[in-house]
Order: sequence, then C-alpha cells, then structure tokens
Amino acid sequence: MKELISKIIEFRNERDWKQFHNSKDLAISLSLEASELLENFQWRTSEEAVKENIENIKDELADVLIYSLLLVNDLELDIDDIVNRKIDKNKRKYPVNKAYGVKTKYTDL
Amino acid sequence: MKELISKIIEFRNERDWKQFHNSKDLAISLSLEASELLENFQWRTSEEAVKENIENIKDELADVLIYSLLLVNDLELDIDDIVNRKIDKNKRKYPVNKAYGVKTKYTDL
Amino acid sequence: MKELISKIIEFRNERDWKQFHNSKDLAISLSLEASELLENFQWRTSEEAVKENIENIKDELADVLIYSLLLVNDLELDIDDIVNRKIDKNKRKYPVNKAYGVKTKYTDL
Amino acid sequence: MKELISKIIEFRNERDWKQFHNSKDLAISLSLEASELLENFQWRTSEEAVKENIENIKDELADVLIYSLLLVNDLELDIDDIVNRKIDKNKRKYPVNKAYGVKTKYTDL
Repeated sequence: MKELISKIIEFRNERDWKQFHNSKDLAISLSLEASELLENFQWRTSEEAVKENIENIKDELADVLIYSLLLVNDLELDIDDIVNRKIDKNKRKYPVNKAYGVKTKYTDL
Repeated sequence: MKELISKIIEFRNERDWKQFHNSKDLAISLSLEASELLENFQWRTSEEAVKENIENIKDELADVLIYSLLLVNDLELDIDDIVNRKIDKNKRKYPVNKAYGVKTKYTDL
Repeated sequence: MKELISKIIEFRNERDWKQFHNSKDLAISLSLEASELLENFQWRTSEEAVKENIENIKDELADVLIYSLLLVNDLELDIDDIVNRKIDKNKRKYPVNKAYGVKTKYTDL
Repeated sequence: MKELISKIIEFRNERDWKQFHNSKDLAISLSLEASELLENFQWRTSEEAVKENIENIKDELADVLIYSLLLVNDLELDIDDIVNRKIDKNKRKYPVNKAYGVKTKYTDL
C-alpha cells in the first residue's frame, strides 16, 4: 500500500497538481468517481453489469482507491488505524445477536 | 491489505450479510459513503472542515475503503493490478508536457 | 410544470424506455446527474465554475430536474404537496431563533 | 413553481442563510440529497423500497427539488428554458430510430 501511495504521489508531483488538491476538492472527486463506478450498474442487474462492464468497473474502482489514498496521504492518516477503528465502531453499532441476517440500519435495530 | 480484507469479510460473515452484498448494492453503498465523507466539507472551506470534522472524516473515509475492499474481494480483483493499470492509463491521458500545472480535463487537453 | 412533465413522458414513450425506468434505477440516475452537475465545480471556486461552465451547469441541472420529475410522475406524487410538507418539517427542524445565521446541522442545534 | 421558489427563498431569508449559499456548496448539497434519496433503495428491490420507505422518499425528493430550485433562482435561470433545451439536445443524442427500446448510452449508439 505504501508503494501504491508513492506511485500516486509521484504521478501528482510530475504534473505539479498538488496545488489543486485541497481536501474538499479531493472529497468531491472521490464522490464523482464513486458515481462513475455506479454508472456501470445503471439500468442493469448486478450480474449483467459485471458481465458487460467489468473492465470499466476495474478502472473506476481504481480511481476511487486512488483518491482515497490521496486523502489518506494528505491528511496524514494511517489506513490500518482508521479502518480498524471503524470496524470496531461497526461491531458496537451492529452486535451479532441483533444484526445477524438482517439488513436493518443500526438506528432502527 | 490482505489482513484488512480478512477482518472485513469476517465482520460480514459473523452477521451473515453476504446474502445482501451484490455488486450493484455495494456500488450504491460506496457512493453513499463517499457522499457522507463529502458532507463534512459542506458549507465550509477545506481547512475549516478538516479542523472541525477530522474524526468523522476518518470514519467516513474508512467506510469508503471498507466498501471498496468488499468490491475488490467479491469481484476477485487485485488492488495492485487495477491501480497500476489505471495509473498507466492516466499517464497516457495526461502526458506531463500537456498536463503540467493545469487542471484541464483530458478531453480538453 | 405539468406541461414539462408531459414533454418528458412523451420523450420517454417515443423511445419505449418506460420498461427500464424502475424507481431504483431512476434514483441512481438522479444521483449520477447531480454528480455531473457537481463536476463543473471541481478544482474551481464557485465563481470560476459559474463563469467557465454555465452552459454545462444549465444542462446538468436540467437533467436533475428531468429525473426528479420522472420520479414524481412514476410515484404519482404532487410537487406542491411534497415540497410544502418538507419546508414545514424544515421549519420545525430549524426554528428561526436557533438557526438564524448559523450553519449548524439540526441534530447539533 | 414561482410560488414554491418564493416560499423556499422566504425560508432561507428568515434564517439569514443566503451568506452560505454559494453555487458550489449548493451543488454539493444537491448531490448529498440525491444520495439520501438513493439510500432508501439500498439493499432492496425497487418495489420493496417504495413500499417500505415512501414517506422518506417523498422528503428526500423534495430536498432535491428544493436545492435545484435554489440553484435555478441564484443562477437566474428559467426552468422551462433549461429543461426544454435539454430535451431538445437529448432528442438529437437519442434519435427514435436508434434509441427505440434500447438502453445503450448515446456514445455507443
């Protein structure tokens, strides 16, 4: 992961794009890329979309990861740290005995 | 990264949630989490948002990563592979001599 | 507004697209069009974006309205009814004496 | 529609919120509300979502309309004008003889 982040930062530095990358605009970009990923599933069942659009799905998911890693880097976060912390929170929000096999939002559990 | 994916899949299996996780709904979730991340920046400058909301930003960015990793896992993708491939495509779309210091979209370069 | 809805439905019927327009996919489309609108503001101040991209902003905002009106039509809703109801709810969530001049979310007021 | 816009502007003025409403943040809000609308369809079929969540769907669709109308007002646009213009463009992008009964994107028609 460190190696991927290095490559992405190198790509940015070669183009002198750091000047545009404030966190607010990176968060906008991340949201736009997530939409472009979702666009592959529009008007299709999940299976149809994966079958027809897998190459584009890979590219857009990669873009989501790239912008996520830029934010992680620029905000000086640690991926293991933030993801583990969130999984722990989710465990408390969705205790197994209440959440098993149901898709109810935690606010309604 | 493999370890993080294992933890996320373990969390899902303990709750028997695989049954809900088709790729289309995971792509919807990823888009919703990216929006919740962006919500932290609404009505604020980038600096204000980071200062006021960093804890929530960490949580929402973690959620984006969690859903991204679920999609990577379920579609049997390799992160290094898809991200490196996309960086290579971006290098062709944004050659340094044209893209240096400008924020123009590749379609207008 | 009725007239606009008629035109949009006529456009759809001429192409026999009603068969694709379930509400879930229309909600996805609406979200995608809102992202395309937002894309005009990426990497720019609000003023720069409006100055540079006003023609595309008009088109994407129109697309947001078109999908909103399709949902209103297909779910047999009344625009006056749902908007007035929501304004009334917002008045209760954001009473003038608490919300005046502050951008705090109602959950924190 | 004019009447609705007046009510929305009155709501904003009573709270002195015009100062926060630059177009970029309004476009962010519109995107966030479209996501909240979409959230009602997550993990559900279209029919299940409409049956279970119609009241929330009405509220979130109203929020999408409210932010759309704020943008229309602040950018001094005319709804009939921008929607009719976009329908005309869509007619050229999707001619009936090519688009009838198919969900192909215009770039692939």
